[in-house]
Amino acid sequence: MNHRMILRLVCYILRVGAFSMLPALIISLFCQEWAAVMGLSIAIVLSALLSLLTFLLPPRTREIGAQEGFLSVALCWVAVSLVGALPFFLSGEIPNFIDCIFETVSGFTTTGASILTNVEGLSKGLLYWRSFTHWLGGMGVLVFLLAVVPMGKGKNSLLHVMRAESPGPQVDKLVPQLQKSAKILYTIYIGLTLIQIVLLLLGGMPLFDSFCTAFGTAGTGGFGVKNDSMAGYSPYLQTVCTVFMALFGTNFSIFYLLLLRQFSRVLCNQELRLYLGVMLGSIALITWNILPLFQGSVKDALHHAAFQVSSIMTTTGFSTTDFNLWPAFSKTLLIALMIFGACAGSTGGGIKSARVLLIFKASKRSVKRMLMPRSVSVVHMDGQLVSEDVIQNTYSYLAVYALTAILSILLISVDECSVETNVTAVLACLNNIGPGMDLVGPMSNYAHFSGFSKLVLSFNMLAGRLELFPVLMLFVPQAWRKS
Amino acid sequence: MNHRMILRLVCYILRVGAFSMLPALIISLFCQEWAAVMGLSIAIVLSALLSLLTFLLPPRTREIGAQEGFLSVALCWVAVSLVGALPFFLSGEIPNFIDCIFETVSGFTTTGASILTNVEGLSKGLLYWRSFTHWLGGMGVLVFLLAVVPMGKGKNSLLHVMRAESPGPQVDKLVPQLQKSAKILYTIYIGLTLIQIVLLLLGGMPLFDSFCTAFGTAGTGGFGVKNDSMAGYSPYLQTVCTVFMALFGTNFSIFYLLLLRQFSRVLCNQELRLYLGVMLGSIALITWNILPLFQGSVKDALHHAAFQVSSIMTTTGFSTTDFNLWPAFSKTLLIALMIFGACAGSTGGGIKSARVLLIFKASKRSVKRMLMPRSVSVVHMDGQLVSEDVIQNTYSYLAVYALTAILSILLISVDECSVETNVTAVLACLNNIGPGMDLVGPMSNYAHFSGFSKLVLSFNMLAGRLELFPVLMLFVPQAWRKS
Repeated sequence: MNHRMILRLVCYILRVGAFSMLPALIISLFCQEWAAVMGLSIAIVLSALLSLLTFLLPPRTREIGAQEGFLSVALCWVAVSLVGALPFFLSGEIPNFIDCIFETVSGFTTTGASILTNVEGLSKGLLYWRSFTHWLGGMGVLVFLLAVVPMGKGKNSLLHVMRAESPGPQVDKLVPQLQKSAKILYTIYIGLTLIQIVLLLLGGMPLFDSFCTAFGTAGTGGFGVKNDSMAGYSPYLQTVCTVFMALFGTNFSIFYLLLLRQFSRVLCNQELRLYLGVMLGSIALITWNILPLFQGSVKDALHHAAFQVSSIMTTTGFSTTDFNLWPAFSKTLLIALMIFGACAGSTGGGIKSARVLLIFKASKRSVKRMLMPRSVSVVHMDGQLVSEDVIQNTYSYLAVYALTAILSILLISVDECSVETNVTAVLACLNNIGPGMDLVGPMSNYAHFSGFSKLVLSFNMLAGRLELFPVLMLFVPQAWRKS
Repeated sequence: MNHRMILRLVCYILRVGAFSMLPALIISLFCQEWAAVMGLSIAIVLSALLSLLTFLLPPRTREIGAQEGFLSVALCWVAVSLVGALPFFLSGEIPNFIDCIFETVSGFTTTGASILTNVEGLSKGLLYWRSFTHWLGGMGVLVFLLAVVPMGKGKNSLLHVMRAESPGPQVDKLVPQLQKSAKILYTIYIGLTLIQIVLLLLGGMPLFDSFCTAFGTAGTGGFGVKNDSMAGYSPYLQTVCTVFMALFGTNFSIFYLLLLRQFSRVLCNQELRLYLGVMLGSIALITWNILPLFQGSVKDALHHAAFQVSSIMTTTGFSTTDFNLWPAFSKTLLIALMIFGACAGSTGGGIKSARVLLIFKASKRSVKRMLMPRSVSVVHMDGQLVSEDVIQNTYSYLAVYALTAILSILLISVDECSVETNVTAVLACLNNIGPGMDLVGPMSNYAHFSGFSKLVLSFNMLAGRLELFPVLMLFVPQAWRKS
């Protein structure tokens, strides 16, 4: 167990955190928000100082295995969430520290669940920081590190780190070199974010709102800067978000293939086809179901259905209307989409299209084998053979996912909210969506939960973002032992 | 594809159905319930006539494979449910035929979900028939056939039939000969039922109620003869049911081991330990949670907690109190127990203790392999190696189970009931429990659902009882084709 290399990674991440708070500090200085300036300054200095620890205990070797990969990813995310929560607490804008942790974990994990009853009451600097955590967490803080910090020779040894942080059943290296992959990912990510900002500005959205909204969309996070989320913006601005949420929920390797002009491979991509198929099908069904709510106006119903489906399925969590008041069929379909999630290799959460597809194929094979016990068959995905290990891991993922969800629902049910509230709160946090139904609906928030439940839900958000295993590993004593 | 052998099995089952209705007919004659007499007589004659079809098309060979096994089990259950529904319809006591089908499928699958708002209004003969379907469906109609009908030489070829009808991840032959296994199972089943009837009679329960209650308990069904289920009976009678529900939810191979005096194997049985551990733990937690409802009386709280946990976990569905009014924590725990279910090889439903254990072990191995990719490990259960095929099938079962549940919830949500109603209605039917929460709570019923939803829920009950695959096979065109 290379403890010192884990420490080094955590220290690197603290430095990334400190740097990322600088723009927020500048905004606060500019707006003369002195409480926020104080909070941000202390947090920046503290993170920077803590990050120096690695020089006291330098690693002897840069090699790290799977075990260290999992642990360091989980620890980095916990560390960055803790220092990221400091500005909210020190400025006094969120007085309860558990609330600060909940809000920051919700930011970095791109969940977008909030304990704030009045978002607009927050200072500009902290609003910016809150939205920027989405952007940073979306593509992954360690992938960011990989993209910008020269890691020296041992860089491919960080494959385990990237594997633990990237979403999806299989790690998707775009090119053989890890660092180059990370750079390509971040280039596409920055490019798309910039295009969205420009489109929002063209639609008349203020500069500050445009940046924050684009961060929330890019990370598929969902923190807004308005109390009514996106309801107050023009249909044009809402439509821009609908399209960009769907884009950021797409596997980034698709964009890479588009850049390489490999259009036929894009068209044949099975995950993409399932993702778009489910999305369009759901939009159609919900449009039909909510038509009476919009006095039969297909245009309005389609507009809101598309926005909400795109928002929930990509696990963003913006809203243009209170879908908690929609008919039961639409609500149920949205809950199902919460679990389905976006594509692997995107910034979105959920079980993910690729896993659903893989499990469907593997289950079909099991049934075939039951009927014809002597048949030998393998599972293919996009023409590639899928190894039995990946299939077993995907199944285990599903099992552990279900178990985590059930246990979490049970734990937060001591707060005595309705079953619908508890179930959708856990699903909304575990799948990194944000709003659920009933008491945690899009026009409500998570403020009424007890401190204990907020910690359980924060755990869920981290577990969901890091795809369960790294976070669960923190609680397994064997994982910490020297192997 | 041996179509004629499938027909023969269906005809046999129709004959079993006809014979099973005779006691109900005698009761109706005795009570002078002429409408019920008419309904039962026509149903008996019709079943008997239909069962003669096999003589027109006798099978050329008795051998049947896995494919025929699945299909015949599904078809037998559909056939017996259809003729079993006739007496309710023909007597006019349940005027709507879809309701009759729902009630009969609910009986045979040992679900116990009812569309009757006034159970006590039913004639004695049909009440008896309704409860007896539980007893027949509990251990399996085809296992019954196997136990009583001499199948000639090809009897071991019916292994596929038994496999498709017996609950659990692996088929549990007590002894190498299939027919002997079936006989032992039914002997234990009849023995336990008789002991319960005697204990109920000793507690002062009327003869008719004792038989019906014992049938409902033995099959872990849950149809009662009173509108308030078990609430009106004495605490002694309720406790007898608590104990016997738990017993009928136990793997019957445990009773066989007890008869063979292999006590150490019983004590070491991992499934049994998990089953009892979860049961006792849940009773303790719920007792603590509902204590305030019983003015702090531990005895009363424990009594009702034990009854309800035993009832829900074994998927029986009797109730002594309206647990829909219990605190959210207890309700959530009961919903989780609905999914967990009883033991494999019992008359209970749900995912089942053995599967949960197997999935837990397999997932633990996957995580171990993630950490130490070069490690080789196998999964053991009670000291026996579990094959990779069984593991994959168990995982697929879980996946198909989740998919079936989600799709069914979506389908019945067009009725616009609450999310809690829809979710628990599907779980209560798919796991063969009966009562859910909210509008389908223990003091309510399924009458308010539309005909379409009732058919979806009937499908769920059959899919749950036959463990998904045989029933799903009915909708796969390839399964019908000659192989």
